[in-house]
Amino acid sequence: MTTLLIKTLRDICGAAHVLTEAADIEPYATDWKRTTRGKPLCVVRPADCQAVAAVVKACRSHSASIVPQGGNTGLAAGATPGEDADEVVLSLTRMKAIRALDPVAMTVEVEAGAILQVVKEEAEKHGRLLPVSLAAEGSATIGGIVSTNAGGINVLRYGMTRALVLGLEVVLSDGTIVDGLRHLRKDNAGYDWKQVFVGAEGTLGIVTAAVLRLVPLPRETVTALLSVADVGTALTLFALAQDTVGEALSAFELISATSIDLVERHAGLKSPIAAGEWYLLLEAASSLSGLEPAMEKLLSDAFEQGLALDGVVASSRQQAQALWELREHVTEAEAREGGGLKHDISVPLGAMADFLAEAGNAVSEICPGAGFNIFGHLGDGNLHYNVLLNGAKNADAVNRAVHDAVVNHRGSISAEHGIGRYRLSEWLRTKPESEQRLSRAIKQAIDPEGLFNPGKLLPKQAKGDAV
Amino acid sequence: MTTLLIKTLRDICGAAHVLTEAADIEPYATDWKRTTRGKPLCVVRPADCQAVAAVVKACRSHSASIVPQGGNTGLAAGATPGEDADEVVLSLTRMKAIRALDPVAMTVEVEAGAILQVVKEEAEKHGRLLPVSLAAEGSATIGGIVSTNAGGINVLRYGMTRALVLGLEVVLSDGTIVDGLRHLRKDNAGYDWKQVFVGAEGTLGIVTAAVLRLVPLPRETVTALLSVADVGTALTLFALAQDTVGEALSAFELISATSIDLVERHAGLKSPIAAGEWYLLLEAASSLSGLEPAMEKLLSDAFEQGLALDGVVASSRQQAQALWELREHVTEAEAREGGGLKHDISVPLGAMADFLAEAGNAVSEICPGAGFNIFGHLGDGNLHYNVLLNGAKNADAVNRAVHDAVVNHRGSISAEHGIGRYRLSEWLRTKPESEQRLSRAIKQAIDPEGLFNPGKLLPKQAKGDAV
Repeated sequence: MTTLLIKTLRDICGAAHVLTEAADIEPYATDWKRTTRGKPLCVVRPADCQAVAAVVKACRSHSASIVPQGGNTGLAAGATPGEDADEVVLSLTRMKAIRALDPVAMTVEVEAGAILQVVKEEAEKHGRLLPVSLAAEGSATIGGIVSTNAGGINVLRYGMTRALVLGLEVVLSDGTIVDGLRHLRKDNAGYDWKQVFVGAEGTLGIVTAAVLRLVPLPRETVTALLSVADVGTALTLFALAQDTVGEALSAFELISATSIDLVERHAGLKSPIAAGEWYLLLEAASSLSGLEPAMEKLLSDAFEQGLALDGVVASSRQQAQALWELREHVTEAEAREGGGLKHDISVPLGAMADFLAEAGNAVSEICPGAGFNIFGHLGDGNLHYNVLLNGAKNADAVNRAVHDAVVNHRGSISAEHGIGRYRLSEWLRTKPESEQRLSRAIKQAIDPEGLFNPGKLLPKQAKGDAV
Repeated sequence: MTTLLIKTLRDICGAAHVLTEAADIEPYATDWKRTTRGKPLCVVRPADCQAVAAVVKACRSHSASIVPQGGNTGLAAGATPGEDADEVVLSLTRMKAIRALDPVAMTVEVEAGAILQVVKEEAEKHGRLLPVSLAAEGSATIGGIVSTNAGGINVLRYGMTRALVLGLEVVLSDGTIVDGLRHLRKDNAGYDWKQVFVGAEGTLGIVTAAVLRLVPLPRETVTALLSVADVGTALTLFALAQDTVGEALSAFELISATSIDLVERHAGLKSPIAAGEWYLLLEAASSLSGLEPAMEKLLSDAFEQGLALDGVVASSRQQAQALWELREHVTEAEAREGGGLKHDISVPLGAMADFLAEAGNAVSEICPGAGFNIFGHLGDGNLHYNVLLNGAKNADAVNRAVHDAVVNHRGSISAEHGIGRYRLSEWLRTKPESEQRLSRAIKQAIDPEGLFNPGKLLPKQAKGDAV
C-alpha cells in the first residue's frame, strides 16, 4: 500500500517532490525547538492547489493521515508528524506566489507557502503594512500564521492574524477545493466558515491561499525603554499611555530584571537605563505629526507621577533597534543559561499582579531553587512565563502549577503558540468539558474521518471512529 | 402540548414574562422594516442565563423552535418568527446588565439585552470607545450586534463587531451553558468556537452575554464633505487619505447626487457645497495633535490634484453633525419618495466602477424608468445600492440582476445586514455549493435538531432530519 501511495504521490507532484530518504525528511520531521521528532511516511511538496487536492484524495484512499506544514517554525509541535510512519507531511513551501497586492483596497492575495517577511517587504514597497511581527517571520509562512492565528508584538494595536484574514482557499478531506478568496472587508452572507480554519492548526483542512488585510504604513515610530518598580505601576503606565498616545500605541512589552540580566550576561548587550524590578519597552507609530510630542508628554508625566524609575526615548532608528535587541535576545540568552520551562500564558490585566504572586509562590514551593525569566506582551495580558529549573527534575509539577494559577484567574494556557502536540494533555486537563465538546463537534463536522493532523489540538481518534 | 409548554415557561420566567395575547406579541412578531410578520406561539422573556437554559430545555422537549431576539432592529428579518405558530420568540431584553468595565484592560462584560448606545455611553464615561456605530444603536442590543456581526460606519478603522468580541456565553440546544466569558485579547488554546456564534443570526445557540474589546476614545475628530465627478476619482481620493491621515481615517462614505437630492427635497436639509455626481463624507479621529493639519493637507492636495470639485471641513461639532445629517437622512428620504428596492452589497474596491456600470445597465434594461439611490461605506467596498422602481413591478428580476453583477465581481450579496429570511433564496441561488455544504455541516454540528431560528440563514429542515 505504502509503495503504491508513494508512486501515486510522485505522479501528482513529480519524483523530486516526494521525499522518502531519512536525511531529506529530517528537517520536516523535527520541530522548531528540536525537542519533538516524528517519523513520517514521506514528505510531499505539491506545486499548486489542484495538486494538494489530488494528494489529499490519494492519502485518504490509502488511509494515510496528512500533516500540513509551512515554515515549520511553530512552538507547539503542531506541524510535526507522529511516530507511526502512517502520516504524510504535506509541505506548502513550493506555493509561494504573491498573486495580487492592491494598495488602495489594502489587500494582498498570497499562497500559503509565501514567507511572512517577503510579503511584508512587498507591502512596504506600496506604503502598506502587514502587521504581524514575530521572531520567526523570516521563515514562517502565510499558511502557518493563518493556521496558528499567530500573535506577536503588534497584537495590541492590530489584533491577532485572524483580524487580518479576509478570505481563504482551503482543501477539505474529500479533496474539495473551497474558494473563499474574496477581497472583502465586509461579508455577512451566511456563516463565516473561514473562521474555523483560522487557528485550527491544520486539523480541519489545508489552507492553500489567503487574502489578508493591510494597513497604512505609519510614517513615524517612537520607541522608549522605562524601568518600573512593580507590575501594578507598569499597568498604571499602560493606562496613561492609552490616554496620551491612544490608538498609536503599537507595542507595550514587559521584561523582568532577570531577563535583562540574562541578556547582559549572555548576549553582550547593555541596558542604557538604571534597573528596576521590571522594564517596559513601548512603541508608538503613526502617520500624524503629533506622535513625538505625545510620547514626550507620556514620559514626562510618567516621571512626574513617580511611575518610572528611569527611562530613555530612542533618538534614532539605530537606538530604537538597540532597545529592541534587549527584548529579542531574551529567548537566546535563556537557552545559553541552560534553558527554561516555557509557558505562553495570558490572564486578564486586572488579575496580572495576583497571578504573578500566586504562580511564583506555587512554583517556589515545588522547586525552591527556581528562577523566573518573565517577559512578553503586557498590553495584551500575554506573558512568556519561563521557569529556570536550575537542574530540578519536577518540570511537570511546575507546569501544572503555573497553568492552575492561569485557570484560576480565567486566563489561557496558550495565548499565542497554540496547542499542537505540546499542550494537548494540559488542554484536556484544564479546558471545561462544555468547550471540549464544542471542539470535538467542530472537528467531527469538518474532518469526520480524522484525516488531518491527528493528535494535534484534539486527541487522536481511532481510524473511522467518530470524534 | 402548547398549554403545557406555556405553563412551564410561566413557571420559569413568571407569568408576566410569557406573552400570548396578539397585541402584546405584535411588536416581537414584526420586523424593523415592517414588511415581514410572523405568528409565534408566544414570547418569553427570561431574566437570566439559567432561565434561558430552562426555556431552551422546555421548548426542546415540546418540539417548539426558538427565535432569539434582541432589539429587533435587524434588516434581514432574522429575528422574526415564522407563520406556523410553532416557534417561541425568546427576547433577551430583560438581561441588560453591564457587569464589568475595565478601562485599563479596555474590556467590557455585558449581558445580551443591553442597548448598544447605553454601553457606548458607559465606555465614554471612562474615556473609552465601543466602536460600533449604526443608525439603530439606540435600540440594537449587544446580543443582536454579536449575532449579526454588525457593521456600520467605523468598520474601516475598527472592523466588524467580530473584531471586538473577546468572549461569549452561549446556551446550546441541550440547555448547556458554555461560559466563554474570558477577558483575553490573546487565547489560542484550541478552536476558537465562539467565532461560529458571531454572525450566526441565532441559528446555533443563544448568546446570553459577551466580553467586548474597547479602544481609546479619540480626543479630536475632523469631518469633511467633498464632491467629486466619478467613483474612480473617489477611490483615488481614498488612497490619498490613507497616505495622508493613515490609520486615523475612521469613515469614508460615498453618497450619490440622487441621494443628496432626495434629502434636500424630503428632509429640508441643504448641502453646503457645489454638487458633483458623487459626494464623499470623510471622518478622521485621533488622540494625537497632528490630525487637523493632516486633514487640511489632504483637502488642499485633493483640490490641487483636481480630485475634488468642492469641499468643506466642519469647523465645529454642530457643523460636523450637519454634514452627517445629510448622510443619515438618506434612508428616510428614500421612504418618503416612495421606497426603494434595497441591496446591501460589497465588491472589491478595484471592481467598484465596473460593478456600478454593469449593475446600472442591467437594471435599466429590465426597468427603464428606474432611479438609483446609492450610498454607503465606500472605504469598505460596501454600498447600499437601492433602486427606485418608480412603480415598476419587476422587483425580483432587478434583485437578481444586481446580485448577479455582485457575484460576477466576487462580491457579497449581504455585506452587513445578514441573510435572515430576507436574503435566503438569493443566498441559495448565488452561494457556491462547497460553501453551502460547509454551512450545513456547521449547523448540523452545533444544532443538529434545528431547534434555533429555523428558516433563517439556511432552509428550514424537517423536524428531526439531518441538515
